Amino acid sequence: MEKLRNGYLFPEISMRREAHQKKYPDAKVISLGIGDTTEPIPSIITSAMAEYSLALSTPEGYQGYGPEKGQKSLRKAIAEKIYPNMGITDTDVFISDGAQCDIARLQMLFGRDVTIAVQDPTFPGYVDTGVIMGQTGAPDESGRYAGIEYMRCAPENAFFPDLATVPRTDVIFFCSPNNPTGHAASRDQLRQLVDFARGNGSIVVFDSAYSSYVSGDQLPRSIYEIPGAREVAIEISSFSKFAGFTGVRLGWAVVPDELLYADGTSVARDFDRVVCTTFNGASSVAQVGGLACLETEEGREAVRRVVGKYKENTRVLVDTFTALGKEVYGGDDSPYVWVRFPGQRSWDVFGEILEKTHVITVPGSGFGPGGEGFIRVSAFNSKEKVVEACARLTSFLA
Amino acid sequence: MEKLRNGYLFPEISMRREAHQKKYPDAKVISLGIGDTTEPIPSIITSAMAEYSLALSTPEGYQGYGPEKGQKSLRKAIAEKIYPNMGITDTDVFISDGAQCDIARLQMLFGRDVTIAVQDPTFPGYVDTGVIMGQTGAPDESGRYAGIEYMRCAPENAFFPDLATVPRTDVIFFCSPNNPTGHAASRDQLRQLVDFARGNGSIVVFDSAYSSYVSGDQLPRSIYEIPGAREVAIEISSFSKFAGFTGVRLGWAVVPDELLYADGTSVARDFDRVVCTTFNGASSVAQVGGLACLETEEGREAVRRVVGKYKENTRVLVDTFTALGKEVYGGDDSPYVWVRFPGQRSWDVFGEILEKTHVITVPGSGFGPGGEGFIRVSAFNSKEKVVEACARLTSFLA
Repeated sequence: MEKLRNGYLFPEISMRREAHQKKYPDAKVISLGIGDTTEPIPSIITSAMAEYSLALSTPEGYQGYGPEKGQKSLRKAIAEKIYPNMGITDTDVFISDGAQCDIARLQMLFGRDVTIAVQDPTFPGYVDTGVIMGQTGAPDESGRYAGIEYMRCAPENAFFPDLATVPRTDVIFFCSPNNPTGHAASRDQLRQLVDFARGNGSIVVFDSAYSSYVSGDQLPRSIYEIPGAREVAIEISSFSKFAGFTGVRLGWAVVPDELLYADGTSVARDFDRVVCTTFNGASSVAQVGGLACLETEEGREAVRRVVGKYKENTRVLVDTFTALGKEVYGGDDSPYVWVRFPGQRSWDVFGEILEKTHVITVPGSGFGPGGEGFIRVSAFNSKEKVVEACARLTSFLA
Repeated sequence: MEKLRNGYLFPEISMRREAHQKKYPDAKVISLGIGDTTEPIPSIITSAMAEYSLALSTPEGYQGYGPEKGQKSLRKAIAEKIYPNMGITDTDVFISDGAQCDIARLQMLFGRDVTIAVQDPTFPGYVDTGVIMGQTGAPDESGRYAGIEYMRCAPENAFFPDLATVPRTDVIFFCSPNNPTGHAASRDQLRQLVDFARGNGSIVVFDSAYSSYVSGDQLPRSIYEIPGAREVAIEISSFSKFAGFTGVRLGWAVVPDELLYADGTSVARDFDRVVCTTFNGASSVAQVGGLACLETEEGREAVRRVVGKYKENTRVLVDTFTALGKEVYGGDDSPYVWVRFPGQRSWDVFGEILEKTHVITVPGSGFGPGGEGFIRVSAFNSKEKVVEACARLTSFLA
């Protein structure tokens, strides 16, 4: 724990926000910071949750413990609607209370003695859970932990590492569309990743929490669109950004039957044991809500509409920063816009923007040393507030 | 993971139940096995959950991420209603998705290099998470893992170990009222435990998931009733058995401000970091339900009534086994009855009872080698089914 000297990124930002609000009590702070959903959940979903909740007060409707890996109906809906024609079945799916929690459970499965690789920059949870598990040495000055392979992903390499130069690790965490860069890996890039993992006997943990933001049909939304991926990849994902479930809490992990250790034994069997031992299943109410998102065309369409609203915000953000002459990445296939401030430090840019515009962003360096010089701007807010934030940013940065 | 050769107890029982049902398709199986609540949740609680769920579809009622450690209102209600006059404040309380999940998070906090002690028998989660974390050696023939201190708790020692003979460990897991024996430690026993931990510089993880089943006012319901406990003890607890939330999922951990490592730094600060990194908070819907259990006298009374129903069942079970001439323990202060079958193996007793009466119990040896020769019988079922199960048990065992 001592090695985790820095605070976790988002609580840190939240403390700075509070300090700012204290300094400027009348300021109308707009958060384009933590990726926290703001749009109401479609009522087809919340009605199902309310109905289920009320039924818990009746002898017929009461339910206690569900299966640790989740209700079969929901696992089946995920297999069929999210992974059509990809060879994923309900038994491969483990329902969870969110992707972040699954990262921790996977790290418990992997244990202290594995080596891991991460994109740089990326969501900090992969590294931080690795540090907690004792997989790493101490951090250097830039914050890189000894023992972790950082795969630089920058505009200069199309946000994809040259795998020929990446040393073998036991596990590769790969987030696409990437948080924070917003880059969605191409089919060819994912093919390279799968081949690399197969060649090295590595497990890929593919985080597709933002897959519903991918535009068009060209880019893969799941790693299982790549042939052979079922033998090397675990996929984790979430209802948080897909259906506004950040507070309701629901996610899933796919651990395919075909994924085996070098000795031929099943990874899914061990993960099942971890889930049964460290988790008692996602809230039954949340699972009912998740099923309502997926089982009818009406539910699916309602969820798509909400994602569409955030995608409109992304467009406004991209246009604003582009008009300001900034290098802007992401946004097409993710709710995040990744903006470069050459020669500046991320926390300084974060601080200046907050001071001058009362807009919260996220400093890119919080996602790894490779994020230095960037900020991440989130589309998760109302259209009105995003437009207002963009007006303030334009006055300040123009 | 390889060391965890045996399946987790409850999924194992569930497989045997399925096999039995296949063999006897017409048998009316009654489960007095896994401690799964069966009584409907009082409507004052589910109405609050339903109302909150529906409000998630409105701009005013929508909420995204809450604080990782839970809503302050709920933390405050727990501090005030569960720990009155014990020096526990809302900042000491971490809301979770259940005690089992908190055990895993605490084990992530402790890491691989700690030594642990557990009661024998006890809830298997403490040992199993320790094995997953790599704290132990291999199991011996009786299932005892090398490196874990097993503190025998049997009728012969009033279910409390002679601490003078127990070696020091970094962490002591202690469950009271104990699952499975049903024994609630006396004030004097807990005083001994706290003194022992203070003398050794150990942390006690006190699991009070069944505290609402304690009868009368003599026995402590929390370790914080013991002076000095705040400096040595973490308490974990749950709404599962208290309010029928086994499926809804809600619990809490108390990590008092006063609990420090040997170097004087705060345990709570590190646990907060683990919670923020590996967990995103309990479902907001569940938290609203939890608050409704605690904030009004009406809610508290409703929850007490449900616990009272299970306690009536416990009485029936105790009377039945007593009338059969069995040695019976527990039941007064817990929903579990612990019955001795001298000279027999637990799994054999479990199997015979299932075969002859179609009643599911839990083999005592599933809780540790010290449970061999016992079975645990749960009061979590309807009165009608408990009475029917008792009639069958009487015919078979008489």
